[in-house]
Amino acid sequence: MADLTTTAQRADLLATRYGHVRETTEVLATPLTPEDQTVQSMPDVSPTKWHRAHTSWFFETFLLEPQLAGYRSFHPAFAYLFNSYYEGVGARYPRPRRGVVSRPGVTEVAKYRDHVDEAMGALLTGGLAGGLTTEVADLVELGLHHEQQHQELLLMDIKHVLSCNPMQPAYATVTVAEPSVEAPLHFIEHEGGLVETGHEGPGEPGAGFAFDNESPRHAVHLEPFALAGRAVTCGEWMAFMADGGYERPDLWLSDGWATSQADGWESPLYWFRVVDDWWLFTLGGPQLVDPAEPVCHVSYYEADAFARWSGARLPTEAEWEAVAARRPADLRMAKFLDTSVLHPRPAGTTESLYGDVWQWTSSAYSPYPGFQPAPGAVGEYNGKFMVNQYVLRGGCCVTSADHIRATYRNFFPPSARWAFSGLRLARDL
Amino acid sequence: MADLTTTAQRADLLATRYGHVRETTEVLATPLTPEDQTVQSMPDVSPTKWHRAHTSWFFETFLLEPQLAGYRSFHPAFAYLFNSYYEGVGARYPRPRRGVVSRPGVTEVAKYRDHVDEAMGALLTGGLAGGLTTEVADLVELGLHHEQQHQELLLMDIKHVLSCNPMQPAYATVTVAEPSVEAPLHFIEHEGGLVETGHEGPGEPGAGFAFDNESPRHAVHLEPFALAGRAVTCGEWMAFMADGGYERPDLWLSDGWATSQADGWESPLYWFRVVDDWWLFTLGGPQLVDPAEPVCHVSYYEADAFARWSGARLPTEAEWEAVAARRPADLRMAKFLDTSVLHPRPAGTTESLYGDVWQWTSSAYSPYPGFQPAPGAVGEYNGKFMVNQYVLRGGCCVTSADHIRATYRNFFPPSARWAFSGLRLARDL
Amino acid sequence: MADLTTTAQRADLLATRYGHVRETTEVLATPLTPEDQTVQSMPDVSPTKWHRAHTSWFFETFLLEPQLAGYRSFHPAFAYLFNSYYEGVGARYPRPRRGVVSRPGVTEVAKYRDHVDEAMGALLTGGLAGGLTTEVADLVELGLHHEQQHQELLLMDIKHVLSCNPMQPAYATVTVAEPSVEAPLHFIEHEGGLVETGHEGPGEPGAGFAFDNESPRHAVHLEPFALAGRAVTCGEWMAFMADGGYERPDLWLSDGWATSQADGWESPLYWFRVVDDWWLFTLGGPQLVDPAEPVCHVSYYEADAFARWSGARLPTEAEWEAVAARRPADLRMAKFLDTSVLHPRPAGTTESLYGDVWQWTSSAYSPYPGFQPAPGAVGEYNGKFMVNQYVLRGGCCVTSADHIRATYRNFFPPSARWAFSGLRLARDL
Amino acid sequence: MADLTTTAQRADLLATRYGHVRETTEVLATPLTPEDQTVQSMPDVSPTKWHRAHTSWFFETFLLEPQLAGYRSFHPAFAYLFNSYYEGVGARYPRPRRGVVSRPGVTEVAKYRDHVDEAMGALLTGGLAGGLTTEVADLVELGLHHEQQHQELLLMDIKHVLSCNPMQPAYATVTVAEPSVEAPLHFIEHEGGLVETGHEGPGEPGAGFAFDNESPRHAVHLEPFALAGRAVTCGEWMAFMADGGYERPDLWLSDGWATSQADGWESPLYWFRVVDDWWLFTLGGPQLVDPAEPVCHVSYYEADAFARWSGARLPTEAEWEAVAARRPADLRMAKFLDTSVLHPRPAGTTESLYGDVWQWTSSAYSPYPGFQPAPGAVGEYNGKFMVNQYVLRGGCCVTSADHIRATYRNFFPPSARWAFSGLRLARDL
Repeated sequence: MADLTTTAQRADLLATRYGHVRETTEVLATPLTPEDQTVQSMPDVSPTKWHRAHTSWFFETFLLEPQLAGYRSFHPAFAYLFNSYYEGVGARYPRPRRGVVSRPGVTEVAKYRDHVDEAMGALLTGGLAGGLTTEVADLVELGLHHEQQHQELLLMDIKHVLSCNPMQPAYATVTVAEPSVEAPLHFIEHEGGLVETGHEGPGEPGAGFAFDNESPRHAVHLEPFALAGRAVTCGEWMAFMADGGYERPDLWLSDGWATSQADGWESPLYWFRVVDDWWLFTLGGPQLVDPAEPVCHVSYYEADAFARWSGARLPTEAEWEAVAARRPADLRMAKFLDTSVLHPRPAGTTESLYGDVWQWTSSAYSPYPGFQPAPGAVGEYNGKFMVNQYVLRGGCCVTSADHIRATYRNFFPPSARWAFSGLRLARDL
Repeated sequence: MADLTTTAQRADLLATRYGHVRETTEVLATPLTPEDQTVQSMPDVSPTKWHRAHTSWFFETFLLEPQLAGYRSFHPAFAYLFNSYYEGVGARYPRPRRGVVSRPGVTEVAKYRDHVDEAMGALLTGGLAGGLTTEVADLVELGLHHEQQHQELLLMDIKHVLSCNPMQPAYATVTVAEPSVEAPLHFIEHEGGLVETGHEGPGEPGAGFAFDNESPRHAVHLEPFALAGRAVTCGEWMAFMADGGYERPDLWLSDGWATSQADGWESPLYWFRVVDDWWLFTLGGPQLVDPAEPVCHVSYYEADAFARWSGARLPTEAEWEAVAARRPADLRMAKFLDTSVLHPRPAGTTESLYGDVWQWTSSAYSPYPGFQPAPGAVGEYNGKFMVNQYVLRGGCCVTSADHIRATYRNFFPPSARWAFSGLRLARDL
Repeated sequence: MADLTTTAQRADLLATRYGHVRETTEVLATPLTPEDQTVQSMPDVSPTKWHRAHTSWFFETFLLEPQLAGYRSFHPAFAYLFNSYYEGVGARYPRPRRGVVSRPGVTEVAKYRDHVDEAMGALLTGGLAGGLTTEVADLVELGLHHEQQHQELLLMDIKHVLSCNPMQPAYATVTVAEPSVEAPLHFIEHEGGLVETGHEGPGEPGAGFAFDNESPRHAVHLEPFALAGRAVTCGEWMAFMADGGYERPDLWLSDGWATSQADGWESPLYWFRVVDDWWLFTLGGPQLVDPAEPVCHVSYYEADAFARWSGARLPTEAEWEAVAARRPADLRMAKFLDTSVLHPRPAGTTESLYGDVWQWTSSAYSPYPGFQPAPGAVGEYNGKFMVNQYVLRGGCCVTSADHIRATYRNFFPPSARWAFSGLRLARDL
Repeated sequence: MADLTTTAQRADLLATRYGHVRETTEVLATPLTPEDQTVQSMPDVSPTKWHRAHTSWFFETFLLEPQLAGYRSFHPAFAYLFNSYYEGVGARYPRPRRGVVSRPGVTEVAKYRDHVDEAMGALLTGGLAGGLTTEVADLVELGLHHEQQHQELLLMDIKHVLSCNPMQPAYATVTVAEPSVEAPLHFIEHEGGLVETGHEGPGEPGAGFAFDNESPRHAVHLEPFALAGRAVTCGEWMAFMADGGYERPDLWLSDGWATSQADGWESPLYWFRVVDDWWLFTLGGPQLVDPAEPVCHVSYYEADAFARWSGARLPTEAEWEAVAARRPADLRMAKFLDTSVLHPRPAGTTESLYGDVWQWTSSAYSPYPGFQPAPGAVGEYNGKFMVNQYVLRGGCCVTSADHIRATYRNFFPPSARWAFSGLRLARDL
């Protein structure tokens, strides 16, 4: 990567984007009380105030301390408290215990954010002796995408927190979709053959931002296949349930069956029955299940069982991306983060591969051929998680629109359900 | 128990005491932020705001709903959320998950307390058609002692919460004792024989308040023995540690040794080493260990091992009470709850059986001969816990002075360390 | 303890008894295949071949190695493999893993027993330079009573092992009792007052053998009470079950209720339902439950709940012993180990405090006033277990008749069910 | 699959092979006592006698009961006891409890095997009304390969069992390799491009036996790469250890690091230190580690960390197979099951892709494009395990020579170490 001074134009754009992304985090935290922001409802969940502090710690650790002359860290203990998983920068507070740390509280965390923002402002507008190099600008970009990931996590996590409260309080007032009819299901065909997959990689002409796990771009051979034009709906899921979907081991992977039995799964996460009706918990509180909306909060195990039941299968990530590459317009039509919605909407007649719900693929999360993590602690960002996880594609209703692209690889363990995860079917031709 | 109308004088005293006790709870919560009040650091610990709500729930459930005509409960879900363990009044929210409930927050809990206080005011000052019966007055008294127990729990619990924070924040500014010398150890002798133990029981002339587990009063035969004039000190404990106290299985009960190894005990809870010095965490933050002050936050297992090492033993609860019965003045000289201290103080020259630290006895917590729990759900208060626990006597530095007496039986499992628990030696004569 | 040479007569008696006790162990192992003798079905259970080896290790470690000149241990690894819990004689193989050690197999264990028996024969018949001292003779006696305890454990343990096999194989052919009627229940009254409890202690004139935990003999004050003339029967237990005994938390101790719910208790251990009938697994295989026979394999928690349900209570161990002291003839009429039965029999008209089933008392297992464990590793025999356990009295159908007495204190944790444990009611007068 | 009557020649070959495979199982069990054959040392391990019975159950369930008129099953309970994981044929005894079932013992298991063998003899030599169809012959073949898999498991499992015994007993006398020098490491290059992977599938001309998971044959695109000519050696592994391989989180996958810390890994499984030397436990008992022999009993996590440390990587399974396809002669030169060895041998100068140790690939175990499991319960053989596992290739020193081929896909979870698993490096060109 060439280490040239970045243009003034890029610096300006970056400063603007920095302000916008940082502000969005605060907007998302606004409806939450100090008590809400403190709770950790399971080991995978982090408190809201931890997300707000950790994203600041990222800028402090990877930008301000190494780059900004004279920078004074806000508090000596925060390096320990707000490191998530970077072994390369020292010890860290154990993740499952984040919810027992009451201090710093929300007020001090807000000050921490201001402190970091002020210093970042200095850094972005002339604070560096040699100007803003490409390397530093790329790190700022990474920090912003990192924060956007945490915005999505913040919403996933607080949804889980609030769902544990027997009073089922709403995070915010949301707009409930009008009753709608289930969109008909059709399949998009692809003839297979050798396709190019993955991102050009940083530094390539016109590449734009991508995480390291999306590169290198490489060839994959596909058999002919078809990909569904929309995600599986709640209506289809209820048919699966009615047909004994959660009671028939023949439909399930062995580990999936064991997990579903041990944890007592009988429906997607957040669904509950009131007399004869299925309800689900949303960020706007409890709602009747709308059969037309995409099913959400299902694990890989459930998605795989559903696909087997339906006589189809999950797509591989290369198949998903091959179709997406041919339909760039889909990205613009997708339904991403909108604080008045925060819930997947019925597909209607607007077909898109993106948005509403992340879609499980059948691809284990593995390095692409020739993958090289970045040098230093930042290299821990992605590579070390490439085991025991499956790739999801497409973004969802709590993903920022400028944080997604065709090559984006999200990933979770096959038992995870608290992400906004659904599925889209595929089949052989 | 006779069901007579209580005197106007008792009603007045009760209203005054009600105000005082309820106010004390709020004073204890004052230094704590909403975030502090939300955290549960282990299953045995409850959040501060839960204590504040649960003590109100007790008055609502056992007094206001059954007795006060037209009483409207504050919130329908609170009966479920703030029931601690009373099976007789319905289902309850699981204890180990109290820390994941962010709402109601501290503001709504304060309103709940006000709502209950207002209704209790009405009840205590003429709100009952037939006047304040003895039965109702006794229940109010029980509710107040219940709340005083929770005040102590609140302080024990928040100490544990704050100790889990790597920054070790103080709960409050406390007065540190002047350096002092260890008081010499002498033993108070008792000739044994048949002694009367336990409380007269409610309704007996001049009996005063006591919990049901302190009755009936009954005879116990004792062998001649002697009881130490003061509690074991930190200095003595450091000698035990220096002599391999935590490394020699021959000193320990088998279960105690297994627990100490599994949990890695090397000192009392809250002690930590800085280079060559021992420090401990207090409600006023970290402090150097003062050899003259009573050792605190030790389990029954540790207390028993120490006693064996020292060539003595723990007293039985009947022995403790037999000595206490002869020294009523001790109670007045004891050091109980004082929000400017909140830590055990060196014995100095003022000898007392009470205060500073609860003292483990060798007595398993069992019903006294002829014990009968109260009828109804209130009968679950004590009796159902009479297994797998040991009795402690004497009160401590976070116990209210008007909440203790010679017959008081506190109890914890033998592995518990987060109470302000120490020990006092005994020996055979 | 005087260290005098024991008489020749005692030596002869001891040698005879040694032969008899050691032979009984082998008789009990005879019906078992090598495979049966290898299995450990839960951490509390030990394999049969482990019992056979461990009891030999006891003689080797505490008698042969310290006392018999020139004794060569059978195998150097056995000191590690067959130490049960004596910290004072070195490290030991972890108890929960005894079932993964396939070698030594039963053949080598038999050789080990022969090796030890031969050396013990030498020791008992002149092998000691200074003759058989009282101290050594007492240790041999201890070793024999130790082995008798393990005979009972061997049968308890193999019953559990075989019960885990879905084919429910019998240990042996046993004589099934004739159908009988439930004996009427009457109570034996005791006027209370000061009673003497416990054993005279070794070395006291005419004391006979007892474990250290039965001493010193001491005074206890009792209130007037009555003790049931027979144990609770299966018929009575079925009435408890029919009345919701396992579904009503108000009948249970809090820990007991939690345990019963977590482990899914719905009846005593080994009971199972076939259509409308209750069956139980015995050492002779499955049998219909006989309402007249004593209920067996219930925990302290269940015994306590039953007693509360029946309006009575469990006796204290001092109460039990006070009644037993007045009825020495009971001991001779009791039903103890008989390899053609191995199951509790209906009381019929022969009333006895002893045999058939061990009887839970309400007494926590604690040291008697003035208790001193023996010096050295043998002192670990009893004292270090005096926490978290409850005392049982009376022996059972798998206890040897010459291994029991009025002062005998057996003990198990309150959740244990695999001992032959039942209950006998008491009530206040 | 055509359902034609198989030729007489195939029937003869099958009968001969049946006799040979079944006999080999018994030969492998011969050195083991009844006690050895009963033990289950961890949930993944099965007792030897269970393997002997389960492989017989397979023939009984899938061949004899559906096909052989008048067949009487040996014992009604065995269908429950010896089903491993086939949900389609009914309930089964829980796997982690196989070690608590002492009966049937080895003698009855031998009779069970004889009973099945006799009936299979009838079936293979004319017992079927319509002759031996291809479908039935294919199932027999499957049963034999199934049994060969269990022969390898039997040896893996008993090695684990014996290793848990502190006396470290040998399974058999084995021939220790002469001290040898480490073979130099060279890489076999492959130019990449589109390669065909997988097995032709049953019924294809000249396909031979393969499991369903090896089909369909399909195209994969590879980048240019090189594959090591031999496996990683113990000498190389010791260099990794000396360089802090087990102490540097930067070398490990995140889950791998967490596992290695939680389980205290400091070397491959079965290695132990005696003063300054590394020893390892083999089926022949403890041996000094030979630096020239292939490292064995490492997990995927360790293999991956080693590869990262060495600057190389693990191959994908398609890469491994592409190289193997060009070197058919390797298969004949490999070192497979030989009961006088049972341990990986130094590579010496004979280069081969096969034998000695299974080799972890970086490929998650997934279905090949177009994969279809067999209909019925036999379809549970492979497909339902295709999650959370990684593929290993090449067979090992306890694999039968006629049970392996270039397309064979073995699989284990990434934390598994008790298989004979090593690794072979790859790198990009």
